[in-house]
Amino acid sequence: MPMAGYTYSFDHAHLLGIEGLHPLDITHILDLADRYADATRAGQRADPVLTGRTVVNLFFENSTRTMSSFEIAAKRLGADVINMPVANSSVKKGETLIDTAMTLNAMKPDVLVIRHSASGGAKLLSRKVDCAVINAGDGTHEHPTQGLLDTLTIRRHKGRIEGLKVVICGDIAHSRVARSTTMALHLLGAEVHLCGPKTLLPPGTDTWGAASATTDFDAALKGADVVMMLRLQMERMDGAFLPSRREYFRYFGLTQERLALALPDATVMHPGPMNRGIEIESAIADGPRSVITEQVEMGVAVREAVLDLLAGTRP
Amino acid sequence: MPMAGYTYSFDHAHLLGIEGLHPLDITHILDLADRYADATRAGQRADPVLTGRTVVNLFFENSTRTMSSFEIAAKRLGADVINMPVANSSVKKGETLIDTAMTLNAMKPDVLVIRHSASGGAKLLSRKVDCAVINAGDGTHEHPTQGLLDTLTIRRHKGRIEGLKVVICGDIAHSRVARSTTMALHLLGAEVHLCGPKTLLPPGTDTWGAASATTDFDAALKGADVVMMLRLQMERMDGAFLPSRREYFRYFGLTQERLALALPDATVMHPGPMNRGIEIESAIADGPRSVITEQVEMGVAVREAVLDLLAGTRP
Amino acid sequence: MPMAGYTYSFDHAHLLGIEGLHPLDITHILDLADRYADATRAGQRADPVLTGRTVVNLFFENSTRTMSSFEIAAKRLGADVINMPVANSSVKKGETLIDTAMTLNAMKPDVLVIRHSASGGAKLLSRKVDCAVINAGDGTHEHPTQGLLDTLTIRRHKGRIEGLKVVICGDIAHSRVARSTTMALHLLGAEVHLCGPKTLLPPGTDTWGAASATTDFDAALKGADVVMMLRLQMERMDGAFLPSRREYFRYFGLTQERLALALPDATVMHPGPMNRGIEIESAIADGPRSVITEQVEMGVAVREAVLDLLAGTRP
Repeated sequence: MPMAGYTYSFDHAHLLGIEGLHPLDITHILDLADRYADATRAGQRADPVLTGRTVVNLFFENSTRTMSSFEIAAKRLGADVINMPVANSSVKKGETLIDTAMTLNAMKPDVLVIRHSASGGAKLLSRKVDCAVINAGDGTHEHPTQGLLDTLTIRRHKGRIEGLKVVICGDIAHSRVARSTTMALHLLGAEVHLCGPKTLLPPGTDTWGAASATTDFDAALKGADVVMMLRLQMERMDGAFLPSRREYFRYFGLTQERLALALPDATVMHPGPMNRGIEIESAIADGPRSVITEQVEMGVAVREAVLDLLAGTRP
Repeated sequence: MPMAGYTYSFDHAHLLGIEGLHPLDITHILDLADRYADATRAGQRADPVLTGRTVVNLFFENSTRTMSSFEIAAKRLGADVINMPVANSSVKKGETLIDTAMTLNAMKPDVLVIRHSASGGAKLLSRKVDCAVINAGDGTHEHPTQGLLDTLTIRRHKGRIEGLKVVICGDIAHSRVARSTTMALHLLGAEVHLCGPKTLLPPGTDTWGAASATTDFDAALKGADVVMMLRLQMERMDGAFLPSRREYFRYFGLTQERLALALPDATVMHPGPMNRGIEIESAIADGPRSVITEQVEMGVAVREAVLDLLAGTRP
Repeated sequence: MPMAGYTYSFDHAHLLGIEGLHPLDITHILDLADRYADATRAGQRADPVLTGRTVVNLFFENSTRTMSSFEIAAKRLGADVINMPVANSSVKKGETLIDTAMTLNAMKPDVLVIRHSASGGAKLLSRKVDCAVINAGDGTHEHPTQGLLDTLTIRRHKGRIEGLKVVICGDIAHSRVARSTTMALHLLGAEVHLCGPKTLLPPGTDTWGAASATTDFDAALKGADVVMMLRLQMERMDGAFLPSRREYFRYFGLTQERLALALPDATVMHPGPMNRGIEIESAIADGPRSVITEQVEMGVAVREAVLDLLAGTRP
C-alpha cells in the first residue's frame, strides 16, 4: 500500500527487529509473503531466487520448529542450507559469539539466521559479518519474523490491521514474541493490550506501542478482535513470585466462557508449542476460531519473503 | 507381475504397514525398487521425480541409519529433505504428537517419514495431515520399508519368494521388523517360521501369517532357504525372565555348526546393527552367505520406490 | 606448477594424510583451491561438478566448524550432503567402525568424510569401502585438509612456501594439525620449528620433517615468517605434569612483546577455536598480522578442491 507520491524500496541489509522498520516495510514484506503463501497453497513451485546462495541457521538455543521453518523456506527458494544447532556443540568450548561469527563469515554465507539467548546478540553479529543477518530470537528482546507472521495471519483473516483490538496474554516479561508482535501490529494501526500476572508484566511496554498493560484479562477481552495466548514457560512457574499452574489457569487461561467476552468472531492465536490446559483449553485450540496452524503456515511464507528481500537474485 | 485380466494401480496415499497391502502392491514396489537398485549400481542418476518436493524425516526415536537411508533416497530423487531428530528436542517440551503433526502439516511438506515409540503413531499422524505418511517404525508394530527391503533382497538372491522357507530368530515380541517382514513374505507365498526364547515369542503370530513360532531353533533351521537373525536389545537382557547373553548365544546364536542345519545355499540376513558374538558369529556375518550389506543397499532402493510412488511427479 | 618434462596427474583415490603425497600433489590441490577461493570472493558460482554425487560427513567426534566447512564446500559444488554426527548416536550402540563403514558403503555414497578418535581410523575405513575417503581428523594422527589450508593461506600471503621459517607452538603431542601442517610445509620447502612445554613435545617430530623441537619459544621466534599457535586443550591442563594456565601463558602465550621477536611482517595463524588470553592475546588475534579468519575461508576452498579432485565429474 504505497502512499501517493511515495516511492517505496526495501533497502535493509538485515532483519534484526521490528523496531526500526517503517510501516511500508512491513506491508511490503506481508504483500510478498501473501504471494508465497498463495503459491504454496496452489501447489506451485516458488522461483528459485536463492539458487547458489548459502543460508546458515545458527541456533544457540534449540528450536526445532523455528529452524525447520527457516530451512523449508530457504530450500523452497533453492538455497543451500547449513544447520548449526550449536546449543550443545563444540562451538561452545570456549569460543565467543564473535569468534563464531567471524568463523562463519569467513565461510562466505549469504544469510545468517541466528537465535541466541542474549538480547542484542543478532545486532552484535550483524556488525561483524558481511552477509545478511536475520534475528530468529535474541533473549527477551525481539523475534521479528514471529511478529510479521502474526500480523500476516491477522491481516488475512480480518482483511486489515488498522483499528483492530488485539489482546496478548501471558508471560509478557520474558516474551520476545510479545514485543515484536506488539510493535508490528501497532505500526500498522492496531490497538494492542497486554495482559498477565503482575510479576510477568514489565514496565515500559508503552514504548513498544502497547495501548495498555493489565492484570485483568476479563476486562481486556471486551470487544477484542484477536486474542493471542503466549506459551507459559513452565520452568519459570511455581516460584516465589509466581502463581501455581492451577491459579494461573483460573486467571489467565483462555476458556470458552472467557472467550465469550471478546467479539463473536474473535480470532484465537498462539505461537506454539502450546501447553493445553495451562494457558489455553484444548476445545479452543482446536476450535473454529483458532488460526494456530495457519500461523505456522504463514511463518514459512514470511520467511520466504524476508529471505527473498534480503538475498534473492532477480533478473 | 500383473495377473491376466487384472489392471493394477498403486493407489495408496500412505505406507503405514505391510498390513493392508495387496500382494500386487508389494510386487509393484519391489519391481520399481529393483530398477532403482540397478540404476545406482550402474552409476546412473535417477530421474529427479521429487524435485520441488519436501520430505520431512520426523524421528522421535534416534536411528541414524534408517534416517540416512530415507535422506539419501529422497535426495537422489531431487527432494528437499528436512531432518527432525526430535528425540531430545524442544518438540518434546509439553507438545503432543498431534500438535507436532499439525505444526508440520502447516508447513506443507509432501511426505512425512515418521518413527515413533508408540504403536499406531504413524496411522494417528496420517489422519491429521494432508501429505503422504511413511511409517519408519512405530513401537513394536510395523516397519514396512524394512519388510519390503528384506523381501527384495531375498527375491534378488533366490529369484522368487513363493515356496521359500524363511526362519526369523530373536526377540520376536519387541520386533516390528519381524512383523512386517513376516507379513510381506507370507503375502508373496513364503513359509515363515519364527523362533526365540519363550518370553520373547508373543501369541498371535499366526495372524501375521507365520507358519509356526517355536523355541527350537535347530529344528526350525532344517531345510531353511533363508535365516534372518534379529538384533538383541541388550538393555532388555539379563532381566528376571530373560536369559543371560551366554545362554542366549548357546540356544539362539547363529553359529557355523547351526547354519549347517539349513540348506547348503541358505541366505543369512540381519537388519542391523549387529551384536557380533551375541546373536550371530562374525564369521557368518562376514561370510559368503551373508547378504547383510545388500539389505542396506536395497533399503535405499525400496525407499526411492516408495517415495516415487507416493509423491513422485511423472510426465 | 608441473616441472618441465614431468607429466603430472592427481591419481589418489583417497585423502588420508599429507604423508604419501608428492609435493606436486599438494601444489596441484593448492592451485585448484586458489581458483575456488578467488571465484567465491568474486561472487561467482562454482561449476556443479558434484551434481548427483552423495557426500557423507561421518563424524565420530563433534566438530561443528569442520563439518560445516565440508558441508558448504560440497553443496557449493552441487553435491547432496548427508551429515552423520554420530558422536552420541545409535551407531554407537554396539556397532563397530567397520560395521558402520560397511553399512554406509552399501548406501553407495561417492565420498565419505570421516572424523574419528582413533589414529588410523580413516585408513581402516578406506580399505572397506568403494568410495573416496577424506580424513577429517583421526586421533592424534593427521588432519590433511587443515595442513593444506594452512599451507594455502601462507602461500597466498607470502607468495611462496620454500625457504620460509614457520614456528608452530602449543600442544604438539596431541595435535594432528601440527603433524599435517608440518609435513605439508616441509614438502614444499619450508623450515618448520615446533615449540611447546616439554611434556607436550613428542619424540620423532623429525620424521614429520620438523627442523627442530624446542621448549624455548622466544629463541624459536627469531626471524620467523609465520607463527602458528595451537589450541590448548584446556581439559588437559593443570594436571600433574602440566603447567597452570597462567604459567603456560607466561612461557608459550603469544603476546605483542613476544611477536616482536619474529620478522616485522610475520603472519600469525591459529586453527581455531581460540582460547583468547591463554595461547594468544586478543590484540594479536584481531590484529593486522592475523590471518585466522582467512584460514577458515581457505578451508572451504581447499575442501572444494579435494572433493573436486576425488569425486568431481568433468566433461
